[in-house]
Amino acid sequence: MAKSRAEEPARTLKGFRDFLPADKRARDVVQDRLVEVFRRHGFEPVETPTIEYASLILGKYGDEADRLVYAFDDAGQRRVALPYDQTVPTARVLAQYRNELPRYFRRYAIRNVFRAEKPQKGRYREFTQCDIDVFGSGSAIADAEIVACTYFAFVNVGFTDFRIKINDRRTLVAAVEPFAAGVSAGSIVQSIDKLDKMPREKVIDELTRKGLAADGAARALDAVERTPPSPALREVLDASRELGVPDETLEYAPTLARGLDYYTGPIFEVVAPALGLGSLAGGGRYDELIERLGGPDTPAVGLAFGFDRIVDGARQLGLVAECGGGSQVLVTVFDESTRAASLSIAAELRRAGIRTEVHPGVDRLGRQMKLADQKKIAVVVVVGPDEAKAGAAIVKDMATGDQKAVERSRLAVEIAGVLGVGSIAPLP
Amino acid sequence: MAKSRAEEPARTLKGFRDFLPADKRARDVVQDRLVEVFRRHGFEPVETPTIEYASLILGKYGDEADRLVYAFDDAGQRRVALPYDQTVPTARVLAQYRNELPRYFRRYAIRNVFRAEKPQKGRYREFTQCDIDVFGSGSAIADAEIVACTYFAFVNVGFTDFRIKINDRRTLVAAVEPFAAGVSAGSIVQSIDKLDKMPREKVIDELTRKGLAADGAARALDAVERTPPSPALREVLDASRELGVPDETLEYAPTLARGLDYYTGPIFEVVAPALGLGSLAGGGRYDELIERLGGPDTPAVGLAFGFDRIVDGARQLGLVAECGGGSQVLVTVFDESTRAASLSIAAELRRAGIRTEVHPGVDRLGRQMKLADQKKIAVVVVVGPDEAKAGAAIVKDMATGDQKAVERSRLAVEIAGVLGVGSIAPLP
Repeated sequence: MAKSRAEEPARTLKGFRDFLPADKRARDVVQDRLVEVFRRHGFEPVETPTIEYASLILGKYGDEADRLVYAFDDAGQRRVALPYDQTVPTARVLAQYRNELPRYFRRYAIRNVFRAEKPQKGRYREFTQCDIDVFGSGSAIADAEIVACTYFAFVNVGFTDFRIKINDRRTLVAAVEPFAAGVSAGSIVQSIDKLDKMPREKVIDELTRKGLAADGAARALDAVERTPPSPALREVLDASRELGVPDETLEYAPTLARGLDYYTGPIFEVVAPALGLGSLAGGGRYDELIERLGGPDTPAVGLAFGFDRIVDGARQLGLVAECGGGSQVLVTVFDESTRAASLSIAAELRRAGIRTEVHPGVDRLGRQMKLADQKKIAVVVVVGPDEAKAGAAIVKDMATGDQKAVERSRLAVEIAGVLGVGSIAPLP
Repeated sequence: MAKSRAEEPARTLKGFRDFLPADKRARDVVQDRLVEVFRRHGFEPVETPTIEYASLILGKYGDEADRLVYAFDDAGQRRVALPYDQTVPTARVLAQYRNELPRYFRRYAIRNVFRAEKPQKGRYREFTQCDIDVFGSGSAIADAEIVACTYFAFVNVGFTDFRIKINDRRTLVAAVEPFAAGVSAGSIVQSIDKLDKMPREKVIDELTRKGLAADGAARALDAVERTPPSPALREVLDASRELGVPDETLEYAPTLARGLDYYTGPIFEVVAPALGLGSLAGGGRYDELIERLGGPDTPAVGLAFGFDRIVDGARQLGLVAECGGGSQVLVTVFDESTRAASLSIAAELRRAGIRTEVHPGVDRLGRQMKLADQKKIAVVVVVGPDEAKAGAAIVKDMATGDQKAVERSRLAVEIAGVLGVGSIAPLP
């Protein structure tokens, strides 16, 4: 036993993560805040399995993507695979349940996906994808619903300083085509997409290496930058404002391209330059992709939230209390004679909505205090024999060291005061 | 493309499930209600990866379990596996982060685990495990904290008619041993565990087949049934009551054995006989298992909630509204001239906490109504040119067919009334 442990130390595989309480709570809090907004915007949850037929997952995004897929033979010699993204399983869902799902179907989906990428900072082999999509409608209102839901989702997480960049993939391609000189518009667009990451000259260099004349490249950039929003895009922008997105958050970005070639209309990207975290979310309209992936012919528009980055950004900005997840109160156990008083006090505090744990067993009070300290528990309740007899308890504020005796009937209110919780939410 | 789709129809693998909105919402609601209680009891979340070293997962529960493990070679020729349960990864976490985790560590963990079992009704190859555990304490208070948290978790889901059966594995084994006649106490106990599923005579038959004399088997059963609760168990029962668990919910069950042989003290099982769903949760003290699984020498007590069964039970009892997850309001779009009014009304309703979707685009009103019907949306808001001009909207109650014109400033309150939502919770 010891030997096998020495050979294979107990650890996670590279590119995979454990989330201990502080990390996991931060993720849960961000997820809850996103989901709250998704639901208010009429999006409903769908969950697909962790294992699918490999034939479903493979061959959808080309050989390079296929090499990153976790695929294997199961015990029944079926070739199976873990999801590479959520769009492919969603295309299957749209096909498999086409008679059950509503004509216009808006859903959110949050699940981990798997890619055998070279592990590096900020790149993981298992990571969370969080998508909202509207299926079945090609209208500008559907586009704007995605924009508005995205805006309010970021607001609800607590972000204030972010912008939603919008462009129309069609006008971008049209602006580039006169200068293409035989180079594919898609390839030109991919270079233009780098304008926010590299200087203009570098982009021109890249375009000339791709086969454009140097002045052709410059004129292509000029043409793109001068392109006004298309009437279709204006409608999306107007509808987004009408849905409550402030004008200053919306940015028409004529050079925004989004890497992927499957977008067929408006494209979106959320940026928060002050955070230095790159793009926090991105999406657009992809009217042909669902059918290409094996689903029904369905217009679609959606957006993927960069969940890990959003969590990082939220923590960086202090939007997620670092130690807010654990117990707020530790109830100590002085001795066997006072145990019943301690336990029933814990039950009362929990009923009042206060996160409470009982010290597991009698121990020296100093050691019990130390546990509270180690776990960053804000309040310790001590019930000695005198307090137990008097129907009271001592409440100690661990931040200030202040302590005072409080009648049991006032304990929850008193502690809510120390915790700075305005009101307490009793359990039903 | 069409050919490959014909060969491999778009569908889930056997034993795996999609959760469409109604199912997924029910699961989310149950999970949220459980987690709310876990947190009030000071349990904190931990998440472990979906892929681990196979050497971690295999060889822990014997060959039969190993055959059910999904294991494969990854692209780097590492032998990897999907988790079979949550206890093995947790043992790894306790080892890997022993210097970071608190001395007494109470955590909950909810994740899907994978077993290549023969798919059959109610048995899935991917299913959700939901565990609460206290690590680091051997005290009766820790046992009782598990019992109390379990009780309040079921109450918070909405169950009223359930019992928590409790026994002490040690007294059970001690009661059996004088009659064992060379048969292992563990094997005898496994037969006795079946007393709630098969008649007493069948259990005696099984015991005699195992090598006990017929009267020895009967006397062993008598002895077990007459065994009073041990002093240790009395302490757990008392502490559970002090933590708020009502006496009538706690049932001392001297024949309760729980199948698994790793329990070392109190064992628990939650039953709701009226539901006919079998055991809804089970657990106990397992002071030796964490070390056996490669973790540190750590006393532990915990309980696993049968998540799928609890969701089934909750739905059966009507504790989870079947269609409560989707939009509550559909805002129709009459024509282009009224679009702005419709969209800003949607934004207002969402701000007021009402789940709202906008019909994606102009369409005949009848078809828009039909969508609301199909999606079981309770309220439709119609904004025609007259209403838009007058700053009003028509609110239609889809259940009764009643409709009336309402001023925009009163719209959210009026709709909350139709929805039967007492108050509305504005977004921050």
